[in-house]
Amino acid sequence: MPDIQLYDATLRDGMGGGGLTLTAEEKLRVVQVLDGLGVHMIEAGFPASNPKEQELFALLADERLGVAEVVAFGMTRRRETRADRDEGLRVLADCFAPVCTLVGKASVLHVEKVVRVSREENLAMIADSTAFLVSAGKRVLLDAEHFFDGFALDPGYALDCLRAAAEGGAERLVLCDTNGGSLPAQIRMALAVVSEALPGMALGIHTHDDSGCAIANALTAVEAGVTQVQGTINGIGERTGNANLVTLIADLQLKMGVALLAPERLARLTETAHLVDELLNRSPNPAQPYVGKHAFAHKAGLHAAGVRADAQTFEHIDPAVVGNSRDVLISELSGRSSIVEKAAQAGIAADEEFAQRMLDRVKEMEHRGFQFEAADGSLELLMRKQTGAYEPLFRLESWRVLVEKRADGNVETEATIKIWVDGERYVRTAEGNGPVNALDKALRDAIGEIHPHLRDIELVNFKVRILDERRGTGAVTRVLIDASDGQAVWGSIGVSENLIAASWDALVDSLEYGMQPGAKLAAGAAVDSSEGCSGE
Amino acid sequence: MPDIQLYDATLRDGMGGGGLTLTAEEKLRVVQVLDGLGVHMIEAGFPASNPKEQELFALLADERLGVAEVVAFGMTRRRETRADRDEGLRVLADCFAPVCTLVGKASVLHVEKVVRVSREENLAMIADSTAFLVSAGKRVLLDAEHFFDGFALDPGYALDCLRAAAEGGAERLVLCDTNGGSLPAQIRMALAVVSEALPGMALGIHTHDDSGCAIANALTAVEAGVTQVQGTINGIGERTGNANLVTLIADLQLKMGVALLAPERLARLTETAHLVDELLNRSPNPAQPYVGKHAFAHKAGLHAAGVRADAQTFEHIDPAVVGNSRDVLISELSGRSSIVEKAAQAGIAADEEFAQRMLDRVKEMEHRGFQFEAADGSLELLMRKQTGAYEPLFRLESWRVLVEKRADGNVETEATIKIWVDGERYVRTAEGNGPVNALDKALRDAIGEIHPHLRDIELVNFKVRILDERRGTGAVTRVLIDASDGQAVWGSIGVSENLIAASWDALVDSLEYGMQPGAKLAAGAAVDSSEGCSGE
Repeated sequence: MPDIQLYDATLRDGMGGGGLTLTAEEKLRVVQVLDGLGVHMIEAGFPASNPKEQELFALLADERLGVAEVVAFGMTRRRETRADRDEGLRVLADCFAPVCTLVGKASVLHVEKVVRVSREENLAMIADSTAFLVSAGKRVLLDAEHFFDGFALDPGYALDCLRAAAEGGAERLVLCDTNGGSLPAQIRMALAVVSEALPGMALGIHTHDDSGCAIANALTAVEAGVTQVQGTINGIGERTGNANLVTLIADLQLKMGVALLAPERLARLTETAHLVDELLNRSPNPAQPYVGKHAFAHKAGLHAAGVRADAQTFEHIDPAVVGNSRDVLISELSGRSSIVEKAAQAGIAADEEFAQRMLDRVKEMEHRGFQFEAADGSLELLMRKQTGAYEPLFRLESWRVLVEKRADGNVETEATIKIWVDGERYVRTAEGNGPVNALDKALRDAIGEIHPHLRDIELVNFKVRILDERRGTGAVTRVLIDASDGQAVWGSIGVSENLIAASWDALVDSLEYGMQPGAKLAAGAAVDSSEGCSGE
Repeated sequence: MPDIQLYDATLRDGMGGGGLTLTAEEKLRVVQVLDGLGVHMIEAGFPASNPKEQELFALLADERLGVAEVVAFGMTRRRETRADRDEGLRVLADCFAPVCTLVGKASVLHVEKVVRVSREENLAMIADSTAFLVSAGKRVLLDAEHFFDGFALDPGYALDCLRAAAEGGAERLVLCDTNGGSLPAQIRMALAVVSEALPGMALGIHTHDDSGCAIANALTAVEAGVTQVQGTINGIGERTGNANLVTLIADLQLKMGVALLAPERLARLTETAHLVDELLNRSPNPAQPYVGKHAFAHKAGLHAAGVRADAQTFEHIDPAVVGNSRDVLISELSGRSSIVEKAAQAGIAADEEFAQRMLDRVKEMEHRGFQFEAADGSLELLMRKQTGAYEPLFRLESWRVLVEKRADGNVETEATIKIWVDGERYVRTAEGNGPVNALDKALRDAIGEIHPHLRDIELVNFKVRILDERRGTGAVTRVLIDASDGQAVWGSIGVSENLIAASWDALVDSLEYGMQPGAKLAAGAAVDSSEGCSGE
């Protein structure tokens, strides 16, 4: 396999996904993190489309990067304009970025219906714009938009578009599956023709996931000789998203033998993926290949036993290679050895007898509706309590919640708690926009003074599941809460016939877990990682 | 392209995903919906692994399905046991399901490290078990577990495993990429060898998404002659999930020209995907290919303009073909015509102007978090209110809920409501095992005397989903209630920042809907699809 260039489009194409925004400083942070990972080219956007982009380019101009080159992105010249008088192209020419990616149409349908110029004019737009930027000292990439759809409609014209850029001096031609509708077979066929028509020309591939084949399409292109893959971190992007660069990196390096990143850089893959999600305020997808929380989670006892015998039996790669870790999901299906392993992760020495007691307890609780797979925090607390050495944060006397829909239509919620901490009684009342919110506020009010770190703990996720739903509102309720102190994330659980009581139990666990000394150590597996990445 | 069989593994392999559970009734609902879609085989699970599975198979035995065949799933016999004395196999033989899928190991690594039997014994386990079930009158499929990894290690042995099942009389051999680590090139190479070694043998493909190639791997296998694809709805499953059957169906039919489903069935794809998510209490993935809320969302002005000029410019398929729609905001409803249709079902005459007003109202409410797909009851009430001729059951003055965890550890819940019915004021207080249960009891106590039919209405299902989960307990809550009068089932919805207020709104809708004269007629709509599917 030849060397493959990694081209990240997170900051430009990726931002087309609904509701995603980053400040200039956050974008700079993404650039630094991607540079630290070893990405070769980072598309930063159009240098002047708004003040935020201008600020970003000003920041980037002063930034010293190790591996990555910053790419400015723009369009070919407007119709019937000289390239050197086109405002957009002049901005690109004046920008500090050494590389410019120009988007040009490669489909007759778009030339006729969207750009509405003659076929010849479109070719001239591509050729002139490329030549102008090359003469301004830039290295130019052509993003051949809608290339594969255009190739299907009129292969000759699609190739002419590529040739126009090549003749203009483009360094590389990037074939884009802009609508994301192609399957690998189409990519393969088109590339066979392109390679023959433009021998020796450096090519790139840019895919979207509308048919669920963004990754396979990019890999197919690499097999066919393409030497640059474009994608976004975690596959963010318009509609169904772009090819996920995180998955592409792992597939190329670990499955196709492409030497992309040094091992210590590849081991940052999980933390990089999570950090970008964090910056975008997205919940990381637990099912994401390679880096997801569940990507190496083993549930069934048989699987877990197999992994212990030989990890290869149920793991396609060693999770440590991409900075992820194996997760043993504890459930009634698990055996004692899973408990021992989980305890060891939390720094608790567990013998067989301890493991058996824990297992009995877990089984009994699962029978009542608990489920610890998504509640690692509660599970660890349970283990600590089982050791007998656990000191709870406080002792509850009572709590009371009042929710009232008043005659004027307003809903009011109020919670009062009575607790004991270090021999002292605390009574606190708080209002909230819901019963659990009010309880949370009252509890923090009571113990926040003694434990100021409590203020760093935020509830980031709250899920309610009614078990045995057929019993309607008389059913058992399971509440799952995810909490975070900005570094680690942990889950807690509460189960009760009463929704509020279940929520209270989960709430208390999430705070208790966050306040115990060893918390970060254990929860670390998940985020461990994001601490490391800023240091380098 | 030859005919391709669709095999759904949602209810068995899919349930390996963290935190997923369904009741037997919910599983039956999934079976009905998949049958209505046109799925050929539905893997229901092992007929006796626990009481829930037993209940499911009892329900399925009485169910008339149109297209789908129910598949019972089990393992090959235990080591050194006669197949006809193996308990698990006997359960399969005695089960009503016409088809059995047997999982057998096809990798030397697993035979040695996990099953720990000799290679010969493993082959005998496969052959005997298959032959036993065939002799019991079953059609047998072999799930050749870890086939592709096994093929890479020892192709000869992997093929021997397949041959053992073929000689035992298996109807089809399913090649499984159990660890999900394969790329399309490996699938293609292995299949070339298998097709040559077992000419004419019917094959299937079962893939996982650990390398992000589950879909492409399955499609590659189809190109190589495989005639059954296995997957799960929305790709749920252990670790990174199974191949997404929803995407596979659309790719095969719309991109590869496989005639799978009649157009009116294919148009149920989006609805089916959302319904299964709803049953699993999962938020549908907006970026999911074909059926996601954002799959045909156009953001950039240029894209939107292009779509108006010619939809093909920026859409890889016509979204209506899979029951999705271009406009994000009305994605849950296809437009005015479906409002008119829904109104007609409920006996409401709706003109274009009425439909437009309803559509605006629905859009506005969906923007606030409502979602009417699983709340037909609330949608119909909304339409009735829009006609201006609607008489509510009662007028609310106020309600109040008190939940208290007392010092003695007991939790007490009490609700008081103040309502007006026919000019008279009713004040009622009730206790319950949770806040919604208490409200429900108080309300029934107040109006049950005037409306005795109310006593026939039961709340059968109660679901809570926190929207915008990242805001923790300060987020918006959506409550869905299913109610039934023993004949029809209808859904209602409530949305509020306050969990109790949202529950109250859903509760009132569920009772109001059940009490109106035309209720049963309309409620049929909800079950429409599941009824219709058994009729064909």
